[in-house]
Amino acid sequence: MKIENLINQIKQKKSFLCVGLDVDLNKIPKHLHKFDDPIFEFSKEIIDSTSPFAIAYKPNVAFFESYGLKGWNSLEKVINYINLKYPEIFTIADAKRGDIGNTSSKYAKAFFETLNFDSITVTPYMGKDSIEPFLEYDNKHTILLSLTSNYGSSDFQFHSEKKTPLYLSVIKKSQNWKNKNNLMYVVGATKAESLKEIRKIIPNSFLLVPGIGAQGGSLSDVCKLGLNDSCGIIVNSSREIIYCDNSRDYSKKSAEISSLMQKEMSKQLIKKGII
Amino acid sequence: MKIENLINQIKQKKSFLCVGLDVDLNKIPKHLHKFDDPIFEFSKEIIDSTSPFAIAYKPNVAFFESYGLKGWNSLEKVINYINLKYPEIFTIADAKRGDIGNTSSKYAKAFFETLNFDSITVTPYMGKDSIEPFLEYDNKHTILLSLTSNYGSSDFQFHSEKKTPLYLSVIKKSQNWKNKNNLMYVVGATKAESLKEIRKIIPNSFLLVPGIGAQGGSLSDVCKLGLNDSCGIIVNSSREIIYCDNSRDYSKKSAEISSLMQKEMSKQLIKKGII
Repeated sequence: MKIENLINQIKQKKSFLCVGLDVDLNKIPKHLHKFDDPIFEFSKEIIDSTSPFAIAYKPNVAFFESYGLKGWNSLEKVINYINLKYPEIFTIADAKRGDIGNTSSKYAKAFFETLNFDSITVTPYMGKDSIEPFLEYDNKHTILLSLTSNYGSSDFQFHSEKKTPLYLSVIKKSQNWKNKNNLMYVVGATKAESLKEIRKIIPNSFLLVPGIGAQGGSLSDVCKLGLNDSCGIIVNSSREIIYCDNSRDYSKKSAEISSLMQKEMSKQLIKKGII
Repeated sequence: MKIENLINQIKQKKSFLCVGLDVDLNKIPKHLHKFDDPIFEFSKEIIDSTSPFAIAYKPNVAFFESYGLKGWNSLEKVINYINLKYPEIFTIADAKRGDIGNTSSKYAKAFFETLNFDSITVTPYMGKDSIEPFLEYDNKHTILLSLTSNYGSSDFQFHSEKKTPLYLSVIKKSQNWKNKNNLMYVVGATKAESLKEIRKIIPNSFLLVPGIGAQGGSLSDVCKLGLNDSCGIIVNSSREIIYCDNSRDYSKKSAEISSLMQKEMSKQLIKKGII
């Protein structure tokens, strides 16, 4: 997907909401277990009900993988369903991949070609040659971990050389890589104050922001420092939306919560003069 | 697998060779394409021919994933084949996974339960809570990236705070994590000189060492500084072994190369007084 199409969709839907699909068989409503593929049935209904309010879906690959072959089959069905029925919606494979060059090119093939995702999350530890194979794809987006929302982020991401913490060094160095325009970055909502420094280095890049809600991040804090003239942020919510209700009507409640978040986002976009 | 069983196998086979299964349909002998599952057929023959000389196999998950559902199916068949026919052999899922806690626990389930690997490679960027879910499994081993063999390793792994490069900080901090005895580390053969410092911190841990051969690392350099009283290193070779011949007799040649490497390793084990 071209970045312009993502921005257009944000303006049309007045939303920068991404719904995270962390589908766990132990957490979905019981009546779905009668289906051959409960993971797909659940995902499909969540997608159909929240699509007026969401501009992106982010299947969390680990959850699918944990069911082996069956889960991988469900993942294929979910991404194909979105691509067919909602081609305007941005898709993110939350996979945190990254390896030496010839191996990363296989991961890129898996997610950009075989599964046809618009983007993938990747981890920077192994450096430039572990990421560049992803960046070679036109109109595909590589979302590099910078500052994550979990408490373990303090273990290594703040490791500082000459006062530059690792998470900033990742952003700075990666801005010299080939096809850097295909880069986005993960910055956790729980570290909103860091957005000030980050926006000085990458004023125009899109950021994927997890950690709103259950993990404690605040939407208004993130918007104050993270929004740019093209919006520039995608805010993810997973559990708060997909597991907010456990009845047969679960997807109605998911739509309601998504709608409330979309309204908040709409206000922020108006305030910033984007819509 | 218990670590004692791995050490016993090393002593019995006089080898610490791991064969990396980076199976690429474009590189395997042409006659295999007539099979329903050429990836599995190729892997099976390589395993059967090299098993007298190898103490571990390391399927590179990216290569399997790049073929989607079919590839994931081949991966299941390969690990099941090893576990059934060669239960004494140590298996490594080269997957470089790692995510927030509840997600990492799904990856751990995928590779330790669903696929039943003995170990998995993981990436440290997201810190303690991204790794601890893997460490909870008894007799399963979590191989943490420290210093990798690729050229991009210099981008972030040498980022130094108070003269401590990130790759050493990863080792030092992880030694305070719960169930740290289930940790092993990746240290590339191309950075053999770093083993001196690393062995001061973790004299007893096992190291997975890629980068011998094609990538330029030397076995004797690695052994000089890396071997400990229980061997303590697993040296991986992928391309040099599995793609050394492209004829119908490919697996004979793979066995020959593996045998030559085993002989070199045997000498090193004798020199160190391990066997």
